[in-house]
Amino acid sequence: MTRSPLATPFPALPAIAGVTLHVARARYKSWDRCDLTYVTLPEGTSVAGVLTQSRCPSPEVEWCRAALTLGQARALVVNAGNSNAFTGHRGRAAVEAVAARAAAHLGCKPSDVFVASTGVIGVPLPIDKAEAGLDAAFAAQPCDWLAAAETIGTTDTYPKGASVTAIVDGRSVTLNGIIKGSGMIAPDMATMLGFIFTDAAVDAPFLQRALSAANAPSFSCITVDGDTSTSDTVLAFATGAAGNRMLVDDDSLGADAFRAALADLCRQLALLVVRDGEGATKLIEIQVEGAESDRSAHRIAMSIANSPLVKTAIAGEDANWGRVVMAVGKAGEPAERDRLAIRFGTTQVARDGLAVEGYDEAPVAAHLKGDHVEIGVDLGLGDGRATVWTCDLTHGYISINADYRS
Amino acid sequence: MTRSPLATPFPALPAIAGVTLHVARARYKSWDRCDLTYVTLPEGTSVAGVLTQSRCPSPEVEWCRAALTLGQARALVVNAGNSNAFTGHRGRAAVEAVAARAAAHLGCKPSDVFVASTGVIGVPLPIDKAEAGLDAAFAAQPCDWLAAAETIGTTDTYPKGASVTAIVDGRSVTLNGIIKGSGMIAPDMATMLGFIFTDAAVDAPFLQRALSAANAPSFSCITVDGDTSTSDTVLAFATGAAGNRMLVDDDSLGADAFRAALADLCRQLALLVVRDGEGATKLIEIQVEGAESDRSAHRIAMSIANSPLVKTAIAGEDANWGRVVMAVGKAGEPAERDRLAIRFGTTQVARDGLAVEGYDEAPVAAHLKGDHVEIGVDLGLGDGRATVWTCDLTHGYISINADYRS
Repeated sequence: MTRSPLATPFPALPAIAGVTLHVARARYKSWDRCDLTYVTLPEGTSVAGVLTQSRCPSPEVEWCRAALTLGQARALVVNAGNSNAFTGHRGRAAVEAVAARAAAHLGCKPSDVFVASTGVIGVPLPIDKAEAGLDAAFAAQPCDWLAAAETIGTTDTYPKGASVTAIVDGRSVTLNGIIKGSGMIAPDMATMLGFIFTDAAVDAPFLQRALSAANAPSFSCITVDGDTSTSDTVLAFATGAAGNRMLVDDDSLGADAFRAALADLCRQLALLVVRDGEGATKLIEIQVEGAESDRSAHRIAMSIANSPLVKTAIAGEDANWGRVVMAVGKAGEPAERDRLAIRFGTTQVARDGLAVEGYDEAPVAAHLKGDHVEIGVDLGLGDGRATVWTCDLTHGYISINADYRS
Repeated sequence: MTRSPLATPFPALPAIAGVTLHVARARYKSWDRCDLTYVTLPEGTSVAGVLTQSRCPSPEVEWCRAALTLGQARALVVNAGNSNAFTGHRGRAAVEAVAARAAAHLGCKPSDVFVASTGVIGVPLPIDKAEAGLDAAFAAQPCDWLAAAETIGTTDTYPKGASVTAIVDGRSVTLNGIIKGSGMIAPDMATMLGFIFTDAAVDAPFLQRALSAANAPSFSCITVDGDTSTSDTVLAFATGAAGNRMLVDDDSLGADAFRAALADLCRQLALLVVRDGEGATKLIEIQVEGAESDRSAHRIAMSIANSPLVKTAIAGEDANWGRVVMAVGKAGEPAERDRLAIRFGTTQVARDGLAVEGYDEAPVAAHLKGDHVEIGVDLGLGDGRATVWTCDLTHGYISINADYRS
């Protein structure tokens, strides 16, 4: 797979005490690469997660949803190349087998083991391959973050990770995240698979609130193709090794700093996924303001971000703002044509329901030639605002997706 | 533009007494073809219409919406190459000028003149060109239905028309329709531009009810790209020349026959548009049953029909039913994974939430190689059902739309 032209280098991710990464070959597909990631976490690790809202979730998603109610974690297993979604009782049995085997190895409860899988839908995860892969991972030397980020990927064209730090209760805490995703990206509550690790001490309910809050303006604001996955999962693990006093609520010392750092990390990770959108050549940022509410602004922004006509226009470097008007009009949200204003980059191209006469096309053309395109829409109705990110729709998307399973 | 591989020949459309067609060159674009269609209708013609639900409608749509309240028509003017949408007061002035000029020529009220335009958004319809084009049309010899169908087209690759007959009150009545549309097709209440003419005598309110009813399972059930146009318009004109006693309500003699004929015509016209979907190589029919309600079934069917991953899979002749599961799951409608059944053509590929073990792939592969693909989904929840039509998503769509305005 050609590396996305929007790819960024994998950054340096520091170690997080007690978090140990291993990868192995389960050979879920006929490929010669690691495809099973096994992460061990120290006792006392708290966990939070956001999962797909799909009505047809994978058994992994259901497993995590149940395990999250207990709030503690000792291990994470990630399978690449097979999503195990829509596989009935055989898929459920595979998840139970994976969790049981890791739990037996670690001497913990199966519910302390989190499992996520991504890849083709409809093929049960082969239990023999999963168990052999796990055994190989148990025996393997620990690996670095880059190797883990590479191993969780499928159609991804580059490994994705980010790291931020914050001062919490006088202690420096680190938050690392790795993520995968490229197509079937329109997260409803999360993105395909993202994993966040921190050495901060954070109570599970507070970690969940912070993650849900960080998810809203990040993973829930990206779309590659409007197709929400059956497997979307973001999990956050907090080991507590940094030694801060436990974060339990908004009044805890450093709670604000931690939430801000988590939000920053989620946003970085979400943008890495859009930058690897299937066939993407441009990152598109859509800023909607003046809507009746933030929710309405978000829906309008997503209507623009999911419009194939808008996305192909940007691919063609065409300032076709008429298609933006179309996408606003079809969103089903309050809008008044004759108050609508649209800009590309910093150039206002339409205002009060018609083209800005004689606007300078040169800066617009220059802006569209770049690889980060900004579309601004002002509805002129209220204070609602939202920003979402997507990518352009190109021949690359067709090539990748008209020939995936076969 | 290469003719769609799904194109069908233009059928023979009989004359409808009193309906006279003319075409002319207004030269809205730098092309050497007729782009203005002018249709005159006899006194006493009743009219009904369904128009886009877009919040950013064209001034033509607003004009028609107002004129429809009066229920009578003497002329129709259709401009191709410029939609006149999002053009503020200048666009409104252009529509008024067109209607006024035709009304002066015919000696009728401007509100008896219906106007529709299609093409680029954001450029006011040039009044001088429109008036010169109209004058040329006034002077032109009448033309046939094929010429009118060709003239209303823009990115269409073939002219589209259909004709049906019915016996109403002992009289044979004819219904002719012409339509255009290829991209920006996800009609909310109508398709891009469709025009229906009948010699039946039909009271305007009854014609409106019959058209709205015929619209629901036809134009409202097709999608090419999920992008609802600012200009969608379907108008139906009834001259009364057939001599039947006026149809005024469901109890009128022949009301059932007329409604059935109109529904048949609308379905034919709607499918002609999908067959000309931008880049289409396959017509996809999606049949959803077992949903909680018909409305829920329709939403699920549209979620499948608008999924780029489903549409690219069909383009690749890949029976990737996992993507159908994904599209059901993301629809936001009641669904239970473990009751879901999916078929391609007549072959059941998934049932009770997992693949049908050992299903015969040969008939599925053969079905997908054809140019009419049928996807059946049974939710197993209730009696709700819906059928929608779309086309595959191919490199052709990208080629057409990444380079349209420029």
